[in-house]
Amino acid sequence: MSEFTEQDRAFMQLAIELAEKGQFTTTPNPSVGCVLVKQGEIVGKGFHFKAGEPHAEVMAMREAGKNAKGATAYVTLEPCSHFGRTPPCAKGLIEAGVVKVIAAMEDPNPSVAGQGLKMLQQAGIETAVGLLQEQAERLNRGFLKRMRTGLPYVQLKMAMTIDGRTATSTGESQWITGESARIDVQQERAKASAILSASGTVLADNPSLNVRWEQFPEQLKADYKKETVRQPVRVIIDSKQQISSQLNLFKIDSPVWLAGIQPRDLTDFPANCEIICLMPEKEQSLLQALMIELGKRQINSVWVEAGAKLAGALIEQNLVDELVLYIAPKLLGDEAKGLCHLPHLTKLADAPLWRLQSMEKVGDDIKMIYMRK
Amino acid sequence: MSEFTEQDRAFMQLAIELAEKGQFTTTPNPSVGCVLVKQGEIVGKGFHFKAGEPHAEVMAMREAGKNAKGATAYVTLEPCSHFGRTPPCAKGLIEAGVVKVIAAMEDPNPSVAGQGLKMLQQAGIETAVGLLQEQAERLNRGFLKRMRTGLPYVQLKMAMTIDGRTATSTGESQWITGESARIDVQQERAKASAILSASGTVLADNPSLNVRWEQFPEQLKADYKKETVRQPVRVIIDSKQQISSQLNLFKIDSPVWLAGIQPRDLTDFPANCEIICLMPEKEQSLLQALMIELGKRQINSVWVEAGAKLAGALIEQNLVDELVLYIAPKLLGDEAKGLCHLPHLTKLADAPLWRLQSMEKVGDDIKMIYMRK
Repeated sequence: MSEFTEQDRAFMQLAIELAEKGQFTTTPNPSVGCVLVKQGEIVGKGFHFKAGEPHAEVMAMREAGKNAKGATAYVTLEPCSHFGRTPPCAKGLIEAGVVKVIAAMEDPNPSVAGQGLKMLQQAGIETAVGLLQEQAERLNRGFLKRMRTGLPYVQLKMAMTIDGRTATSTGESQWITGESARIDVQQERAKASAILSASGTVLADNPSLNVRWEQFPEQLKADYKKETVRQPVRVIIDSKQQISSQLNLFKIDSPVWLAGIQPRDLTDFPANCEIICLMPEKEQSLLQALMIELGKRQINSVWVEAGAKLAGALIEQNLVDELVLYIAPKLLGDEAKGLCHLPHLTKLADAPLWRLQSMEKVGDDIKMIYMRK
Repeated sequence: MSEFTEQDRAFMQLAIELAEKGQFTTTPNPSVGCVLVKQGEIVGKGFHFKAGEPHAEVMAMREAGKNAKGATAYVTLEPCSHFGRTPPCAKGLIEAGVVKVIAAMEDPNPSVAGQGLKMLQQAGIETAVGLLQEQAERLNRGFLKRMRTGLPYVQLKMAMTIDGRTATSTGESQWITGESARIDVQQERAKASAILSASGTVLADNPSLNVRWEQFPEQLKADYKKETVRQPVRVIIDSKQQISSQLNLFKIDSPVWLAGIQPRDLTDFPANCEIICLMPEKEQSLLQALMIELGKRQINSVWVEAGAKLAGALIEQNLVDELVLYIAPKLLGDEAKGLCHLPHLTKLADAPLWRLQSMEKVGDDIKMIYMRK
């Protein structure tokens, strides 16, 4: 990447940091940041906050005003070329008189896919792509996967002991991990488009599966005000229609989607409840059909909090992109509940392989992220 | 520790690095390093290599010759005051005319325990203790625990998957972890005074449980020549006398101690085999009696490679100081073999607690060390 200077890198880094400010709110849109630079000076900065609100480029151009003329734009994703809820950013950049656009990556969205850059080039604007692309990819794993495959990015969260146990043999699981890990989970939930669980877990624990702003760390509370908090959709697999309207799930004002294979009368349920009636095609599992449906519903990323059965089924069907493990410094022994049920696995060579992405201490626990290899 | 200067710290650091050169060979003695400094210049360096050979101080004084007169000695452990296989080092330092001795820590060995420092002080030599004590403690965890409690320091090694499994449901376990982890195990074995296993594991896998110098990394091979390699004692718990003389264990020229509760005729066994006939006292378990016996036999540290039953028993009886886990990036599911059998544990609050000491990548695997909390 010798075409980029150290200065280019620093400005793109800033654009990425700006984009991160939208990570809790932009879904189903991507998080994007933009920096406008003229003669080595920043003249405008912007990030996308929420679908329907201005894109990052527009925010930066607003701040720059007349100074956008002659400036270079650093943007974490290719500027859009289509009329969506807002006019195309490529057009806006041309009209503002920007002379160069450096994008961290192309937008795989079929309605963009290089068209934004082409539009800029045709207007005589210099373009370059690929600066800090890896970081830009990480910003929008969910959006990018959905654009590329139609499926959401799936993170399977598990809280476990050193020996891979999620509960005692009698089912006691509160709390395996410490408070810091539980606070971290709140932040991860807040980034997800949807939280997925199964009726068994919901009936056992009666969880709300919501984002509790009160549990955020102080710094995040300062940046992300309570009134702007977005609650992810809660998706519950409930094939046997066991979920009742009295559960804590329904006390939170955000959608609950009950996924099954049959329609259901929702008369007794509050307005935030909806049925996803799946009709898996031949050789397609219920879970595969669900993920396709969630993709169609513009769910970029799914955060799974479930028991060993759903976890195992998702893993066996190769539907998990990322394992997010919180490991408590405890042992529970081999009669305690295991992490995931993989009944078809008998040979070591068939064991699903993963790649360690990161490990860090979170309080007394460890957080490890593994990506599917 | 304001009494010590930055220079003091640097010299003690060097003494610790020297001591580490003995970590594979000094057992049952501690690893000790010594640096002699005169007018800011190093005039002698030494470390203890092997029981019966000169102590670190003697090696450093030999190198310094007449320059030891007027020097300061930096030593990782209090100089000894007793006649063992070699004369007391404190006496040697006095005779050489050393003017000051800085020790990282006191020697808890009952035959020293402050007497070495006292002997120096009585000869008019200035002494100080406590510089880099924590690192010095780590150097000799085994020796220090044995001196303080009579028991060896016990490291329980386990190779497992992310979900805490050591083998498939059919018992397939070779190989859970990768080659780098297995090389690391060779180095850990090489540091141990003894390797402990149980007859079940030995009968199932027919392991040699020896140190394979060929598998050391090149740097270590250069520092630690093949002809000086020390093989740890192999201790096998064999209460039912199932171990036969045909096993691979006996093909390695180092002791095998078969531990049980009854005497046994060893006519058919090679000379490297010995029986430890345990007679546990009331309210004492076999494993407790074994550890006391190993302590009496001057075993500083025990490296355990065993199955879930022995691992669980050692944990339940609070006999494990350190868990050394190699975690492969795989999942095997909840029907696969678990890490440790803890049949008496039913409440989460009763789960043994650990403290993470370190985590690092070893090839594709992770090595985590937990200490008993």
